[in-house]
Amino acid sequence: MKAKVHVTLKHGVLDPQGKAVGHALESLGFKGVGEVRVGRFIEVELSENDPAKAKAEAEDMCRKLLANTVIENFSVEVI
Amino acid sequence: MKAKVHVTLKHGVLDPQGKAVGHALESLGFKGVGEVRVGRFIEVELSENDPAKAKAEAEDMCRKLLANTVIENFSVEVI
Repeated sequence: MKAKVHVTLKHGVLDPQGKAVGHALESLGFKGVGEVRVGRFIEVELSENDPAKAKAEAEDMCRKLLANTVIENFSVEVI
Repeated sequence: MKAKVHVTLKHGVLDPQGKAVGHALESLGFKGVGEVRVGRFIEVELSENDPAKAKAEAEDMCRKLLANTVIENFSVEVI
């Protein structure tokens, strides 16, 4: 199975990369650009075939390595 | 509206960051980890209220700034 993981900064955590992207978009002439937040999108191929187990394993990976749960949220989708 | 943008490396493009994550997961004791690919997930708030126009604008942003279309694919979802 394949786990698709989104890692995003928690609300209230400053996102300088997002701010920089927002300013760059304005410099390029895009109007009406509001808040920009930049996160990570990670695809992990797993040999596990049970969707529930694969999801649990991917969530474990997030807690141990993929996300910094102090400042980041993660969500896992298994396909 | 909000545009949710996924930027991923094209197939065949080497992903050293993904490789490093894969090795780290194995070091942590996860079994059966296959290919790992790391991409970006960008959320952009737009003042545009028409979904089709907002999507077109976000795709334009991808081509001009958010993605390097030589080596990366992007997909845009508008909500």
